Amino acid sequence: MDLKPTKPLSGFVELLPAQQRCFDACAGRMLNVLRTAGFSVLDLPAIERAEVLTDKDNWDEIETQMFLFQKGDTKMGLRYDGTVGLARYVAGHLNDLVFPFRAAQFSKRYRGERAQRGRYREFYQMDLDILGINSLSTNYDAEIIAVIARALDTVREFVGPYCVHVGSRPFWDALFEYLGLSAAQKKDVFVLIDKKDKMGDADFAEGLSDALGDAAKEGKIKSVFSDGYAAFVGASDALDAAIAEINTFMDTLHAIGVENATLDLSITRGLAYYTGLVFEFKLTEHPELGTAAGGGRYADLAGKFSKTKIIGVGAAIGFSRIFWALLESGKIDVSRFSRPVTAAVLVMGNQNVAYAMRAAADLRAAGIPTAMYLDTEKKFKNQVEFADKIGAPFSIIVGDDEVSQNTVTLKDMESGRQNQISVAGVIELLKK
Amino acid sequence: MDLKPTKPLSGFVELLPAQQRCFDACAGRMLNVLRTAGFSVLDLPAIERAEVLTDKDNWDEIETQMFLFQKGDTKMGLRYDGTVGLARYVAGHLNDLVFPFRAAQFSKRYRGERAQRGRYREFYQMDLDILGINSLSTNYDAEIIAVIARALDTVREFVGPYCVHVGSRPFWDALFEYLGLSAAQKKDVFVLIDKKDKMGDADFAEGLSDALGDAAKEGKIKSVFSDGYAAFVGASDALDAAIAEINTFMDTLHAIGVENATLDLSITRGLAYYTGLVFEFKLTEHPELGTAAGGGRYADLAGKFSKTKIIGVGAAIGFSRIFWALLESGKIDVSRFSRPVTAAVLVMGNQNVAYAMRAAADLRAAGIPTAMYLDTEKKFKNQVEFADKIGAPFSIIVGDDEVSQNTVTLKDMESGRQNQISVAGVIELLKK
Repeated sequence: MDLKPTKPLSGFVELLPAQQRCFDACAGRMLNVLRTAGFSVLDLPAIERAEVLTDKDNWDEIETQMFLFQKGDTKMGLRYDGTVGLARYVAGHLNDLVFPFRAAQFSKRYRGERAQRGRYREFYQMDLDILGINSLSTNYDAEIIAVIARALDTVREFVGPYCVHVGSRPFWDALFEYLGLSAAQKKDVFVLIDKKDKMGDADFAEGLSDALGDAAKEGKIKSVFSDGYAAFVGASDALDAAIAEINTFMDTLHAIGVENATLDLSITRGLAYYTGLVFEFKLTEHPELGTAAGGGRYADLAGKFSKTKIIGVGAAIGFSRIFWALLESGKIDVSRFSRPVTAAVLVMGNQNVAYAMRAAADLRAAGIPTAMYLDTEKKFKNQVEFADKIGAPFSIIVGDDEVSQNTVTLKDMESGRQNQISVAGVIELLKK
Repeated sequence: MDLKPTKPLSGFVELLPAQQRCFDACAGRMLNVLRTAGFSVLDLPAIERAEVLTDKDNWDEIETQMFLFQKGDTKMGLRYDGTVGLARYVAGHLNDLVFPFRAAQFSKRYRGERAQRGRYREFYQMDLDILGINSLSTNYDAEIIAVIARALDTVREFVGPYCVHVGSRPFWDALFEYLGLSAAQKKDVFVLIDKKDKMGDADFAEGLSDALGDAAKEGKIKSVFSDGYAAFVGASDALDAAIAEINTFMDTLHAIGVENATLDLSITRGLAYYTGLVFEFKLTEHPELGTAAGGGRYADLAGKFSKTKIIGVGAAIGFSRIFWALLESGKIDVSRFSRPVTAAVLVMGNQNVAYAMRAAADLRAAGIPTAMYLDTEKKFKNQVEFADKIGAPFSIIVGDDEVSQNTVTLKDMESGRQNQISVAGVIELLKK
């Protein structure tokens, strides 16, 4: 019989134990920041009705990007982001939740498209959203950014420092209006702005010229990328309102101590969804990774599910993508996570197994990570080899002598020094 | 436009925030027990190649029970248990892992069959496996049971006490051999034994008679359910070996202090897979829930993936099934988890938002769960209502007075008492 493949499917990642311990430690720290900031960590189904995942009008496009399947008459699929499920959940629990509701998720997402380098078909995102009914101050946008900043601070030893770029959708809306663009022009220009980074300045200018055919208007739009909003102060009420919102917001960010936050009106976060301020976190030392976290404000989270208007500000931290990429390029050192245990219990003689297991149980109950080698018929050499290989700093040897004297032998695996002491004595020593 | 449904698909569970916090706390405690016992918690892909999930010969049967889909030429599906992925992973990393390898998983599993009461299509299991190359002492079987017992101890306040039933596949094999059953009879009788609990004594007797047509043999098999192995001591070398294994094992379990462990030869854990000792944990106060955790020894984990013989003892704790069922029947009180935060920061006047956010950041950094109400244009009554509704024991009020004096007002929400103190003072008070 042919052996089956042992590699996971392409686009799927699985980590070695030490890597996984490092990943879990990072995720745990970040989730702790979210919990301490009052976010409720939700765990929603990975499978949703197809009609929840997408609207019919973009079904064909999405179908090639998702994992879809049918059971009975019901078409369903794996979630590709955390927002669809959150919208459904919140709309279904309006009376069970307290608003503003702080929701967090840390869960697997799925993309059915063909895997490419750096693109995963299964990955984690950490979402945080603050949701209000009918209204929600932009102060919460600042809070979300502050919380993400603190979450990233806890894993700075692995990902390095970050910076925050803030953009504004209302600014562009007001500018397009001020320039008198048609609806079609607004859309074309916005697509160009959203793709500007990828297309380069020359192509951008050409695209702009194709869309507008008006050198004055083109120049005004280009000026935003060199001079920001400077040319448009006082140009219209809507522009002034957008600029005032930006300024207040940047002031708040600086006042609350968010590092490296800058206004960057080229940040737009795609075509759909966002309606207010938007932002992206980038890792200063790893620009090749693009956006580490991004989000913004949306005017209507759950219109498909409820007549109640739910306004939100949300963001997703693409932590597994960053972590996996840095791991793959050798930029994350997991050696500190290589040791699963502090002590390895070795047993000489099967008659001493119960005593040794009770000793291990006491160590474990005291919070000391402890493995056991229980193949007592193997040579003692094999037992010591096990303790060595798993990197236990200490081995705890149990033989007839130790049992008769109600002790164990504690061996420091590095120095080789050993002494026979009580289990309580071992706990006292290793607890330090 | 019609509103889309807000309920999750049938067979899928989503919890309210307080319920989720309770579930997460329980899972966290149990995982901590596993980590402290030296288990490496793995996170494997939820999607596997179809050929990994199943062998071709039972494809039709399994296809109706799984979520399957195709991308390009590759047929794949969602995992239905933790074992298939573990086998693939271990076979692919033989040189990266240290054996005996202690593996744990806590992940979602999927069953495509139609949902019934108490059956879920998405659920969590907590798996623990100890794997050896070529040999593995039954002492590890005892260790697995001891670790599960300790894990369940940490959630006893929610699930109550448990008992452990131990069975033996080698005992039945030896007995069938001793009774001279044909291969077909062995299989028929084993199926009957496995289903005995569900079919009742009369049907069992009738089935046995159909299979064997030999009153003496039927009587001997029935005697196991009343008298255990008593009638078969000394009957054959294989029976004596199986009985000796059982006795040594039960002695070890008792010597290491596992509570309520009894021999119960009716425990067989199904037809396939297990080859040695088997066991089931049941919740003493919730017999209606059936098996809370079950497992046993298997002689060949990864034969499909590797020529190296990997022997294991493994178990799965069906924790989400238990938790959800107890929650649904009102037997789990999550009220202790109803408060997401200790403090709610309320802000009077938008000019004081930055000060309030810095205060909240200090509280959060000190580990005090803190929410904020930042809609400063709302009436103060709304702000207090928010603090009340989320059940914050304390509110922290920031207005012009507080800011000018570099203080906050701390209000005990139960007594209504309040005093104006520094943020450091609040942290000192609430840290207790």
